[in-house]
Amino acid sequence: MSKPVLIVGSVAYDNIITPFAKGTQILGGSASYASIACSYFSQTQLVGVVGTDFDPSFIERFKKHGIDLEGLEVDESGKTFFWEGEYSEGFKTRETLAIELNVFETFEPKIPESKKNPSFVMLGNIAPSLQSHVLDEIEGNPFVLADTMDLWMNIAKEDLLNLLPRLDMLVINDEESELLTGESNVILAGQKILTMGPKMLIIKKGPNGAILFHPGGMFCVPSYPVTELRDPTGAGDSFAGAFIGHLAAKDSTDFSVLKEALFYATATASLTVEAFSLERLETAGKEALEARYKELIKLSQL
Amino acid sequence: MSKPVLIVGSVAYDNIITPFAKGTQILGGSASYASIACSYFSQTQLVGVVGTDFDPSFIERFKKHGIDLEGLEVDESGKTFFWEGEYSEGFKTRETLAIELNVFETFEPKIPESKKNPSFVMLGNIAPSLQSHVLDEIEGNPFVLADTMDLWMNIAKEDLLNLLPRLDMLVINDEESELLTGESNVILAGQKILTMGPKMLIIKKGPNGAILFHPGGMFCVPSYPVTELRDPTGAGDSFAGAFIGHLAAKDSTDFSVLKEALFYATATASLTVEAFSLERLETAGKEALEARYKELIKLSQL
Repeated sequence: MSKPVLIVGSVAYDNIITPFAKGTQILGGSASYASIACSYFSQTQLVGVVGTDFDPSFIERFKKHGIDLEGLEVDESGKTFFWEGEYSEGFKTRETLAIELNVFETFEPKIPESKKNPSFVMLGNIAPSLQSHVLDEIEGNPFVLADTMDLWMNIAKEDLLNLLPRLDMLVINDEESELLTGESNVILAGQKILTMGPKMLIIKKGPNGAILFHPGGMFCVPSYPVTELRDPTGAGDSFAGAFIGHLAAKDSTDFSVLKEALFYATATASLTVEAFSLERLETAGKEALEARYKELIKLSQL
Repeated sequence: MSKPVLIVGSVAYDNIITPFAKGTQILGGSASYASIACSYFSQTQLVGVVGTDFDPSFIERFKKHGIDLEGLEVDESGKTFFWEGEYSEGFKTRETLAIELNVFETFEPKIPESKKNPSFVMLGNIAPSLQSHVLDEIEGNPFVLADTMDLWMNIAKEDLLNLLPRLDMLVINDEESELLTGESNVILAGQKILTMGPKMLIIKKGPNGAILFHPGGMFCVPSYPVTELRDPTGAGDSFAGAFIGHLAAKDSTDFSVLKEALFYATATASLTVEAFSLERLETAGKEALEARYKELIKLSQL
């Protein structure tokens, strides 16, 4: 019954500076977060690229979660994608201090032959032209979820707009929804985005929960009450990975399953933000995740 | 089974300037909003003061909602409390342009003899010393809910801190919770406020819903998806009035009833903000309110 999920995105070294601490050369990238999150729910197939400098112990961390790495290319020509960012006091803003594309500069996702007919595909946050390229490569009619970010709205909006009608689900945050539509009211922004192509939409509001826009209506989930925010990097990727992981586990995209998935996605993201990189999420275990799911249910259900 | 609610607060003339329009000499004041909101659920007793200039048609509006006005004093010595405020673009901030206390300057709430033994009391947003005075005047052991605002945290913090241990429920917004505790994390702020005296707490987060802090745990409700925000004045008063109104209607403060009340409070506040003053709330009718309650349930319940 459970189906695998094909996840395409970045795998990276991150340097992250928060008001509390600094993480150096830690495992990052949209596909890394999404894959570990997804692996709690379904068989996960990662497609991405790393350079010759990629730490073998990071590979072990993926393997420990049973992630299929056939699609993780090792590009002998260079180094792994690197990103350095700094969060301001209270995590109110994030500034990119350095970015080195390295092997990511010429990356063109290659889907292994055996994985070209997936049921569930997550297009992690990479250039929308690459996301479209992935959809060109695969066959059949999978459920397609995409994440994106403000950067692409600013420098590759046309590509993003071309991608949207090919999506079953777009997952963005409230600031991005305003940037994409010019609408500051998140409800109006969501309604406008649905007219731009994706069948469904999730708008994440950080500590204020998330809203699913579905043809059957809207659905809201509160955030998990995080009191130990340490590093929000990867929260969105983890959210999306867990979300599609639950759909694949149930092999269903029924509204009721999408709603459950929202709760699991929220629970998963709350673990990610409690430590640098994947440190908390990958060690938490399925039981901790289920416990948070149940807490979220208790927190919101009459 | 249903019990009456005693509501003490301000009754005022407001001038309100929004990015869209201006409302002049409109009905305002914490007790006005709270009483009309409460009247949809329970018999409502208003205690407040107006001046000789108070528009008799405003009295009729209260009476149309069956509000008991025995405690509404008409002070022959002056004019009604007046407030003028302006909202910035996107309702992001509110500035007080003018304030004339008038008869409110010497106001001391007088509880009619027949109403001195209430079961449910709402202390609307007035000076905390006056709120405490009301509690001195009444007998028995009613359920006491209080609203307050940033002003009192800045100019009468001692009075407010003295009031808190006398409350069953404090209702404030997220900015106020940070001002009161110095905590920007709303969960930590809420936990801290519970140590300051009130048995329970609600923190409202505007378009991001509200959180109930209860000895039995937290409970979250999303906001109603308002797309026609016209004037947020009175949203908090309406929220609190509806909340206690539902408790009184059920004559219960069980956790399950408090949760239901959160949904009704949210539905009620969403009507208030769609027009100036009480224009939308007072004409909406119980059916419109019930419809929004049901929508909120659909929006959040699995």
